[in-house]
Amino acid sequence: MTSMSYPYCAGNDPMPFDSSDLLSLCKRRGFIWPSYEIYGGVAGMFDYGPLGCVLKNNIVEAWRSIYKSREGFIEIDSETVNPVAVFKASGHVDQFSDLMTYCKECKEPFRADHLAKGHHENPDILTPKQLEDLFVKNNIKCPECKGELGPVEDFNLMFKTTIGPGSSRIGYLRPETAQGIFVNYLNLYRYNREKLPLGVIQTGRGYRNEIAPRQGMIRMREFNMMEVELFVDPDNKDWDRFPEIENEKMTLIPQDGREITLTVGEAVGKGVIVNRVLAYFVYTTQQLLMKLGLDPARIRFRQHLSDEMAHYAADCWDAEALLSYGWTEITGIADRGCWDLSRHSEFSGVDMTHFRRFDEPREVEMDVVKAKHKALGPKFKGKAKDIAAAIESKQPKDVVNNMITIPADSETMQLGDEFFEVVRIKEKISGERVIPHVIEPSYGLDRIFYSILEHAYSYDEKDDYVTLRLRPGVAPIKVGVFPLMDKDGLDVLSLSVYEGLQMSGIESYYDTSGAIGRRYARMDEIGTPWCITVDYESVEKGKNNGTVTIRDRDTREQKRIKIDDVNSVIKELLAGKGFGTL
Amino acid sequence: MTSMSYPYCAGNDPMPFDSSDLLSLCKRRGFIWPSYEIYGGVAGMFDYGPLGCVLKNNIVEAWRSIYKSREGFIEIDSETVNPVAVFKASGHVDQFSDLMTYCKECKEPFRADHLAKGHHENPDILTPKQLEDLFVKNNIKCPECKGELGPVEDFNLMFKTTIGPGSSRIGYLRPETAQGIFVNYLNLYRYNREKLPLGVIQTGRGYRNEIAPRQGMIRMREFNMMEVELFVDPDNKDWDRFPEIENEKMTLIPQDGREITLTVGEAVGKGVIVNRVLAYFVYTTQQLLMKLGLDPARIRFRQHLSDEMAHYAADCWDAEALLSYGWTEITGIADRGCWDLSRHSEFSGVDMTHFRRFDEPREVEMDVVKAKHKALGPKFKGKAKDIAAAIESKQPKDVVNNMITIPADSETMQLGDEFFEVVRIKEKISGERVIPHVIEPSYGLDRIFYSILEHAYSYDEKDDYVTLRLRPGVAPIKVGVFPLMDKDGLDVLSLSVYEGLQMSGIESYYDTSGAIGRRYARMDEIGTPWCITVDYESVEKGKNNGTVTIRDRDTREQKRIKIDDVNSVIKELLAGKGFGTL
Repeated sequence: MTSMSYPYCAGNDPMPFDSSDLLSLCKRRGFIWPSYEIYGGVAGMFDYGPLGCVLKNNIVEAWRSIYKSREGFIEIDSETVNPVAVFKASGHVDQFSDLMTYCKECKEPFRADHLAKGHHENPDILTPKQLEDLFVKNNIKCPECKGELGPVEDFNLMFKTTIGPGSSRIGYLRPETAQGIFVNYLNLYRYNREKLPLGVIQTGRGYRNEIAPRQGMIRMREFNMMEVELFVDPDNKDWDRFPEIENEKMTLIPQDGREITLTVGEAVGKGVIVNRVLAYFVYTTQQLLMKLGLDPARIRFRQHLSDEMAHYAADCWDAEALLSYGWTEITGIADRGCWDLSRHSEFSGVDMTHFRRFDEPREVEMDVVKAKHKALGPKFKGKAKDIAAAIESKQPKDVVNNMITIPADSETMQLGDEFFEVVRIKEKISGERVIPHVIEPSYGLDRIFYSILEHAYSYDEKDDYVTLRLRPGVAPIKVGVFPLMDKDGLDVLSLSVYEGLQMSGIESYYDTSGAIGRRYARMDEIGTPWCITVDYESVEKGKNNGTVTIRDRDTREQKRIKIDDVNSVIKELLAGKGFGTL
Repeated sequence: MTSMSYPYCAGNDPMPFDSSDLLSLCKRRGFIWPSYEIYGGVAGMFDYGPLGCVLKNNIVEAWRSIYKSREGFIEIDSETVNPVAVFKASGHVDQFSDLMTYCKECKEPFRADHLAKGHHENPDILTPKQLEDLFVKNNIKCPECKGELGPVEDFNLMFKTTIGPGSSRIGYLRPETAQGIFVNYLNLYRYNREKLPLGVIQTGRGYRNEIAPRQGMIRMREFNMMEVELFVDPDNKDWDRFPEIENEKMTLIPQDGREITLTVGEAVGKGVIVNRVLAYFVYTTQQLLMKLGLDPARIRFRQHLSDEMAHYAADCWDAEALLSYGWTEITGIADRGCWDLSRHSEFSGVDMTHFRRFDEPREVEMDVVKAKHKALGPKFKGKAKDIAAAIESKQPKDVVNNMITIPADSETMQLGDEFFEVVRIKEKISGERVIPHVIEPSYGLDRIFYSILEHAYSYDEKDDYVTLRLRPGVAPIKVGVFPLMDKDGLDVLSLSVYEGLQMSGIESYYDTSGAIGRRYARMDEIGTPWCITVDYESVEKGKNNGTVTIRDRDTREQKRIKIDDVNSVIKELLAGKGFGTL
């Protein structure tokens, strides 16, 4: 449920980095485009262009390779339009809202807490009345036209719609993918043959009908998430692979605000992170972000303060990236306790417990409700047997003021304690029912996408030259292929190299236009790690016949390799082989 | 815009196949689950479970490998919530609707054309009034409660919402992914360096707020599409690779209704398919569907009848699969002419033409509007120059009743022909502007998914045994890995085989439970092509030490292979190597 905590986006420590250069590159080269520009645009919406779409898919694949391939979690894809019942249970109908106000003059809507910034330490916690008073006291006016502000009111951030004809069937666009996993819990639990732990992942759209989004890809009305819901036995918050990573280091900012570097094992040992399974997935998140190419010096893990954390959460950590907007949450990793399944179980009436089998059966003492058959018989005659069964299906907690209520025909019946008693018995039981707890690493895909671009962006002022130092694994285009001249057979040969790469699934770009230096520059600007050039030596007799040059983006080093080896060399480089060892 | 034609789902030729067995398998084994079951469900919505999600992703990858890797098309990912302007231009606000009626008694909604079936040849074409009369004349009542039917009215099938606070900003959930490509046309055209052809693909959710969906995955309220929009020069409807496939065969049903088998070349030559580029992509669709494992005997291509086809379409073909529901559209391939870009150009005021450069400049005669400077000067003095420029920006068609209207300050000004004349001039031009035409292969992902399952489903009555004969490429699990016994080191060894497969990206399933035959049966039922068993020979001294058995799903043949070769053998089998040649 990270989207609920998205409002946290610190404004401190801004980098000396102008995001407008990057955003203009993104638009010009086809990473992202503001949506519906030909119709005047819609704030908080972006489309992924050809390069952005591939980069985004590459991020998803890296996430899958960790959670599916390594951890063996299962993936589902659930619907985005949900009936209202789902969000009554999840709490979004009542709580997923921001406080807003309108300008009485120009009618522009504003988030009330944003207008209060600078006038109160923590405007998030103010009530509508307190905000209204603050606006009056500080003479806060409309930032657009200086008009007077209207009343402060609650605005639910879910997009609302109706399902089918008529207006009675309310639906909402999901604010997170997580609920699709929770409502399918029983299906998933059965798929996993009723065993825990059970790890489930989902990626897809989330929606948040922002009042006035103004922070580029950081605050989108329609965004992409990668969520993981790990269901665990509440008494077993360990993880089998924990020993593999317990000596790895992380930079942490616990609630006291002091940055510390600890090993994963120390973080749990000192009580900084609440348990081993949560710590394991905080570290897994660090692994994933590093693999995606984020700058380790611009990543940290910050523990939620007690007033940020949901009341049911046992612990919660945000992965934050240092961006031109300041330190920004890009992932949340929380121990959500039994909240999610308890709520859906309560609202749906469906049992979502796990049967925890004991190593060997235990004898336990327990209180049960017993019917007094001798009193029931004479009074209820033929119905006595059914009534006795109804009584014994109740639990001691159901006895109120020495009375018990049971269903009777279409009504209910109250019976006094002349008809039942609470007795203590001994019983052998083979296990017990518990509500699984949820560990949730929730990744903001668009924010991670944008962070990768900011961290990879490198500008050489001297040459006015931009290089995107993307990791090869995420780079949208892996290889640029150029004929030195677009003739003399160089064109035919380089086209066949390009097609060979494409057909083996390696995204390539064929470019014949302009000087070779200009073509390298175009590839450097979009982060293409390698370029292959077919030149006259490739086709002429001599020792370099049948070879091409391959150039490395970051070192600008060039080597000659055999044309027949192009695909395998690129595959080796993608698998991590150093360019220098070619 | 295939979703518009989804209503066509013929009811003829039903197969002797009970889809309920398959649907129950899908639910039990985790392919698809009806959404929100714990809250009573929502008709027309399904979630993809763990196996379904992988199978769906595998279909998308097969589609990408054809359109991206082979054809070099580019992919985008645009937003699903759209402002109303988009669908005014596309026509969906006015035309994307069904006629509905309610039962006056039980309030159940119905599609009016469905109630008229059997009483009229083609209820699709009836007006609301004609349908009401038909109901009265034929005494048609509510199928649920026999109550009287209410009036017939239009119901727009787009899910409606509002963007941001207030109710003024109407948004709709897209009924197709195509519009996201059209509204980004200029961005895409620039990305392609202003060249044609320009091929763009998009996959994602589409929404259709069905009145009363009752056909499983065939009619979903929230569905998945894979759409391709190919922009071509209207004078060049050829395709470079056409010669590669012109001798391949297709089964076609042209408008006359007679099934014929022709080569792709013949289909174009005889005028059955309107042009080579459309024919190429009809055949490409056949290639893709075969690659996905659909049964060639249960696939056909049917040309739209003239009353099915959109008025702007030059030609349109449906790929239909024979399912238990009858012949069902699973893909539409249309030549949509200039409709889409013309409309968005008209509604947005943005020029979306392509500059078609001539091989060499041409001299053309053309009529232009010339200002009469001698008349303008004395009359308008200092403003004469601006007015002359305004006049000459007009075209001959702007002259109405010998008058011309030009902007003047914030108003307009009408001028008589004493101030201008229309003259014929000769000019050298290097090219001309044309609106690109669109070729659209539009794939219904959920319907293809479901068709794959129906065509793969195989039931052996004698043994009461189900095998899903999925192609290895789409099968969600590629390998089942079992220790013969869950002890004696067989468990450790088989777990390492499983992890090795997983880490190399091969979806595998580890199973230790039950007799080995039962484990094979579980894998056969979900279409897993191969199973690997670690037995005592694998770990004991002797010639089979260090080997495992591998079993083929379809032949049930078993071979022994080296443990060290498992990954490479599976990769070879996935690449198409025959099991018999191992």
